[in-house]
Amino acid sequence: PKIITLPGDGIGPEVTAAAAQVLREVAPDVTLEEHAIGGGAFEAHGDPFPQRTRDALQDADAVLLGTVGGAHDSPWNRLPRHLRPESGLLALRKALGCYANLRPVRVQPGLEHLSPLKPELARGVDILIVRELLGGIYFDGDRRIEGETAYNTMRYTTPEVERVAKVAFWAAEQRKGRVTSVDKANVLEVSELWRRDVQALRDREHRSIHLNHEYVDSVAMLIVANPSRYDVIVTENLFGDILSDLAAVIPGSLGLMPSASLGDGAGLFEPIHGSAPDIAGRGVANPAAAIQSAAMLLRHSLKRPDAANQVDRAVALALRQHPTRDLGGQADTQTFTRAVLRALE
Amino acid sequence: PKIITLPGDGIGPEVTAAAAQVLREVAPDVTLEEHAIGGGAFEAHGDPFPQRTRDALQDADAVLLGTVGGAHDSPWNRLPRHLRPESGLLALRKALGCYANLRPVRVQPGLEHLSPLKPELARGVDILIVRELLGGIYFDGDRRIEGETAYNTMRYTTPEVERVAKVAFWAAEQRKGRVTSVDKANVLEVSELWRRDVQALRDREHRSIHLNHEYVDSVAMLIVANPSRYDVIVTENLFGDILSDLAAVIPGSLGLMPSASLGDGAGLFEPIHGSAPDIAGRGVANPAAAIQSAAMLLRHSLKRPDAANQVDRAVALALRQHPTRDLGGQADTQTFTRAVLRALE
Ligand SMILES: CC(C)[C@H](C(=O)O)[C@@H](O)C(=O)O
Ligand SMILES: CC(C)[C@H](C(=O)O)[C@@H](O)C(=O)O
Repeated sequence: PKIITLPGDGIGPEVTAAAAQVLREVAPDVTLEEHAIGGGAFEAHGDPFPQRTRDALQDADAVLLGTVGGAHDSPWNRLPRHLRPESGLLALRKALGCYANLRPVRVQPGLEHLSPLKPELARGVDILIVRELLGGIYFDGDRRIEGETAYNTMRYTTPEVERVAKVAFWAAEQRKGRVTSVDKANVLEVSELWRRDVQALRDREHRSIHLNHEYVDSVAMLIVANPSRYDVIVTENLFGDILSDLAAVIPGSLGLMPSASLGDGAGLFEPIHGSAPDIAGRGVANPAAAIQSAAMLLRHSLKRPDAANQVDRAVALALRQHPTRDLGGQADTQTFTRAVLRALE
Repeated sequence: PKIITLPGDGIGPEVTAAAAQVLREVAPDVTLEEHAIGGGAFEAHGDPFPQRTRDALQDADAVLLGTVGGAHDSPWNRLPRHLRPESGLLALRKALGCYANLRPVRVQPGLEHLSPLKPELARGVDILIVRELLGGIYFDGDRRIEGETAYNTMRYTTPEVERVAKVAFWAAEQRKGRVTSVDKANVLEVSELWRRDVQALRDREHRSIHLNHEYVDSVAMLIVANPSRYDVIVTENLFGDILSDLAAVIPGSLGLMPSASLGDGAGLFEPIHGSAPDIAGRGVANPAAAIQSAAMLLRHSLKRPDAANQVDRAVALALRQHPTRDLGGQADTQTFTRAVLRALE
């Protein structure tokens, strides 16, 4: 199998290198091929998603992404929109046809104290957020600034809603069978279509699923006040952006949050933390999320659940024995990675 | 001064009656006039915002609102959109020209244990969220369902951005002088306009304010992981809906969260909790947020800060002495209200 690695900006190269080491260890038959994306790609090739990177995706089985983007005050943020690092990321998602972003939010037993929530609320949390990733207000439609007025269009079609809902139902069938679909149907027509189509698909093809519908403002409350009530959450792109980042703080470290984006072509796997330019290049970044993303790659793209489980267990062990600095420990990137590799033996 | 009360649905009448009692006590010169809104108004007059209510607002100095809307499975939710309870609320906001929704989020000393957050994170939290309330994706623009496609339009103009930003700057000037403007400028053109206009207004007229800009997904994380970093937050309608509800869980009970909506005409004051149909009519609802909303009315519409402070102190005392059931206490609505009235003497 051929895997494209896209290390990107900031700490991306460090954590991607760690994940690549682990991948080579558990799947020695994979070929890894590195390409450019993001701000670095703009510097080198004048494009945050260069043609050479796009071409390389053609025959890839999966993509392992690091992080993209610069500091808050980076000159990259003042480039025309289509040249900014984030545009490279959005173009990558589109090129791969990754319409379903999977974000597991799990509080590891014994690590409840890291959560900003009270331990009794954090304990046992196990949510999967499925975010629609190629539609809504992110892409297409009327979008412009005209003098003193600006417009964006939120748009969804039934096929777009159905394909991502299918992923959520499929995932729930292997979990507790409960799906919460999140919308703002009391205000938005788009949400009315979303709710109608998700419900219809459930009634037609997934009758064993317990489906309910909640408003996005209410979910933002309840995911903090009572996170254990959720199993699988499915929602549109913008709500998913907000809710998945919100939920990601529950385990207490973004360094522990992987993601998978699935769709028509090769899957895209990336840690959800940012590029952390303040600690980049110092070898101290926590690579756990990148390594867990590699585990998701093994599971979803290479269909090697045993190897995936092995990696997940090795990461959990390494986290207990050699916590990184963001977790209050001492381990740097290499120490942690070596601990994972040792646990794999 | 003439105050319109709109008790609305569910527990609205109970908590509004409590707030009206308190208002009469501290401002015996006000006239209170009750009118219909929401689901009940639809039942009685065929319209969730009847003409008679609209007319009554003409010469009002302020509006004290209860709650609107039915249970999750209420038949009201299946009415055509313009007849639903929520449409009454949106029409009311528009009729009053209330473009700035103020949501104070304060953790009362001694009540940190109610928060879902660890006490050390909850302690001392004091945020004011200023939500734009009449623009964005909530109102106007292209909005429709056409077969298998649905559209909504997010739109802002410079004057809309400036008038709400002014309220945020004005509020910050009486607090710690820090404003965080929240947007999604890495994706949305509307956010680009928003950010540009907020910054320009700061640079032109409010140079003493420390202004920074953050992305909505990042704020959703940080408001939970580190709420003390915020003083005043200003944002557009949809982001404000989500973030203000999210922040509202920090103090631990929605029963403690008032709001004020200010703009061109009379101010609108309401507790942020829902209509709680499950406990409606049983006399057990916590009226603290409605009473605190009356305090905001005294402060912002009647310009009586002393009376407002008196009410706030009385509520704080009553909360300690006679906590309601949602706070783990025993007091019902009347017991709590009497405790507030006694504390006022
Ligand atoms: C960088 C940005 C465009 C992106 C998004 O909003 O999708 C990010 O926030 C994410 O969630 O991956
Ligand atoms: C009921 C609904 C229309 C309303 C809104 O979204 O504005 C509510 O959630 C609120 O925040 O007051």
